[in-house]
Amino acid sequence: MSGAPAVDPARVVADLRELESRTSGPDGAHRVCWTEGWRTARELLAGLLDEIGLAYEVDEAGNAWAYLEGEDASAPALAVGSHLDSVPNGGWLDGPLGVMAGLGVLRAWSGSGRKPARTLALVDWADEEGAFGRSLLGSGAVAGTLDPSEIEGASGPGGRPLADALAENGVKLTEMPEAGARLERIGDYIELHIEQGPVLAERGASAAAVSGCAGLERLVLRFTGRASHAGTTPMDSRRDAGLAAAATALRVEEVAAAAGGVGTSGSMAFEPGAITVIPGAAEVSVDIRHPGAAPLSEMLESILDAAQREARGRGCGLEQKPVWRIEPIAFDPGLVDLAEECCAEVAGEGIRMASGALHDAAEMARRVPVAMIFTPSLEGVSHSPHEDTPETDLAVAIEAFGLLANRRVAA
Amino acid sequence: MSGAPAVDPARVVADLRELESRTSGPDGAHRVCWTEGWRTARELLAGLLDEIGLAYEVDEAGNAWAYLEGEDASAPALAVGSHLDSVPNGGWLDGPLGVMAGLGVLRAWSGSGRKPARTLALVDWADEEGAFGRSLLGSGAVAGTLDPSEIEGASGPGGRPLADALAENGVKLTEMPEAGARLERIGDYIELHIEQGPVLAERGASAAAVSGCAGLERLVLRFTGRASHAGTTPMDSRRDAGLAAAATALRVEEVAAAAGGVGTSGSMAFEPGAITVIPGAAEVSVDIRHPGAAPLSEMLESILDAAQREARGRGCGLEQKPVWRIEPIAFDPGLVDLAEECCAEVAGEGIRMASGALHDAAEMARRVPVAMIFTPSLEGVSHSPHEDTPETDLAVAIEAFGLLANRRVAA
Repeated sequence: MSGAPAVDPARVVADLRELESRTSGPDGAHRVCWTEGWRTARELLAGLLDEIGLAYEVDEAGNAWAYLEGEDASAPALAVGSHLDSVPNGGWLDGPLGVMAGLGVLRAWSGSGRKPARTLALVDWADEEGAFGRSLLGSGAVAGTLDPSEIEGASGPGGRPLADALAENGVKLTEMPEAGARLERIGDYIELHIEQGPVLAERGASAAAVSGCAGLERLVLRFTGRASHAGTTPMDSRRDAGLAAAATALRVEEVAAAAGGVGTSGSMAFEPGAITVIPGAAEVSVDIRHPGAAPLSEMLESILDAAQREARGRGCGLEQKPVWRIEPIAFDPGLVDLAEECCAEVAGEGIRMASGALHDAAEMARRVPVAMIFTPSLEGVSHSPHEDTPETDLAVAIEAFGLLANRRVAA
Repeated sequence: MSGAPAVDPARVVADLRELESRTSGPDGAHRVCWTEGWRTARELLAGLLDEIGLAYEVDEAGNAWAYLEGEDASAPALAVGSHLDSVPNGGWLDGPLGVMAGLGVLRAWSGSGRKPARTLALVDWADEEGAFGRSLLGSGAVAGTLDPSEIEGASGPGGRPLADALAENGVKLTEMPEAGARLERIGDYIELHIEQGPVLAERGASAAAVSGCAGLERLVLRFTGRASHAGTTPMDSRRDAGLAAAATALRVEEVAAAAGGVGTSGSMAFEPGAITVIPGAAEVSVDIRHPGAAPLSEMLESILDAAQREARGRGCGLEQKPVWRIEPIAFDPGLVDLAEECCAEVAGEGIRMASGALHDAAEMARRVPVAMIFTPSLEGVSHSPHEDTPETDLAVAIEAFGLLANRRVAA
């Protein structure tokens, strides 16, 4: 292991800045998957790979793979990477940081004139952000969780059909699951990403090992009461669906805080929504997350109980509309330990945290050992032109990620 | 007084049913002011007046006036009436009940071959419901509270300018205040109306005297926090504007109940309103009413204090946007006493209550002695095709109203 070629953080940051200059404007990054801006990002990647004598292959799901052969070419590769695509008006780091850092690892070996013990595979996942509503599209196809029939009718901005967008990029929806064959060639996967939350920034930490992705329960609660006149209906004759929804939002907060998870009511709508009418119906969204399956299901139960009590207490009906759910996904304990060691060694402090957001790593974790490293997001902001991380933190995290790759590939 | 001609409730109800058949469909009444449906209602009124040898005059504000001359033609008239216009998809009783009951009083005298001591004036107020956003338009013009410049740019459904709608009905906005000259001819005003709330229906009462209209404070509170990721932002790092608004809505309820008034949050909006984003801003409407000026202003103060505390406690900013306010309007104590006596005499029970809704009587009360009588609204419903009152209750209330008119005009 000693003497394994070290990644050059300054070059990784320079590549990220170059990508930013080619694909972003004052209103943020424009690398929505399947668009011209995304293809521009891929062209840059192709040029950078070419510098070290590599080229990428595109699989059936649109993911780009480049392989730097190891001494034992028959051993499954260590995959490194993330995604070049962005949300509309996104930031410069989510997720090019992980792609460029992975490329940095390949570049270091390439420049050393030596071979890693196993092959290193750089992957740029297609459509992590879900341009057509299905997040983790490319990694889901490889992991086997993508069911093409679920999204065949999907359309994006301006009503553009998904099928057209894919065709323009040489991808056929029905063939996307065939990308799962790529799994035969990889043994494990690691990914560097910005945290997208404020925890590390508030702690003043530069890097942390990620133990897994929190599970999620997402639903909408609909309360139905009785609309009536705001001026003439006495307080004790009301069936105010709006107040049942408002009280439930406060219970979501209370339950999440008590359980050590997170819980959010991001949308709330009263009907008819007139200033002079007591709401006859109201909908409130619930998004709760916890890294543990049992606490998550207890949170959900507590919130549904509370909503039911609020509804009953106000003479309202209650209907649940499920939106989405994901089981918590734990990463590989040994690989997470190693990631934490590498962070401790470079950053001086070993931190381990769960991710509240989903990542391609969560799809990969279903099939191979996985770990991630996080670096802070200033103010916790992401999916925004204001997304940023100080370069000093980036340098530490890239170095820790390089160390993790080299130790793992040699193990 | 004895032997004053009694109003015929059955005929009043028949007139109301005739109006309903001419201006309503299965989806409710269509007598929005200044429209064809409203003019159809006025045509019916003209025909009914013609039957008793009267015709109405239209004043500068579009109000219709018919005068049945009294013995002392120089004494100021007792005005009786309400409004024929409805909200879109309205009910059959709000406010034709008061117009047809008033007409019934004139009809009874006309049929008796005798004259009342003073002139009886029937008034059908124009645009009580505020088709262009300004309620009590016609009565406000007469009372002198209408400032034409406040609404000169107003437009209605489909963007139709108010000025066009008025012109189609021979009314000029700038000349509307001249209708105030009608005040010279009237000495007092009484009005029969449905309650539009559940109080009388729940009590099983048929009629009640109305002591005045509650005052109202209406505003929108805007909380500004920080939008951030629902999955990655720990509970203690949030500045959730949505929860500040939700908690405030619950405080509005609490304060109103404690003060014996009413308080409603009819609308609530979170921004950006996405299920996965902690609200960075939120608006909640506040509509509070109380018949007493001091309790009303204490309610407002308590709610603003509570909102400020919620905002501070969640690291949010708070902005108040005033929408509308009205001082409580008390009716004439002597005339209200008389109304209560008449209700007691006919219904067997004297009830006195404040109105939570506004009425043309509130505008008139600024200038002449006023009282109203309420009859129950089934389930408290109004402004709806389901608005209804049992005919037995209508008959009692119409009789009590006729008695009040006859006693007052003779007084």
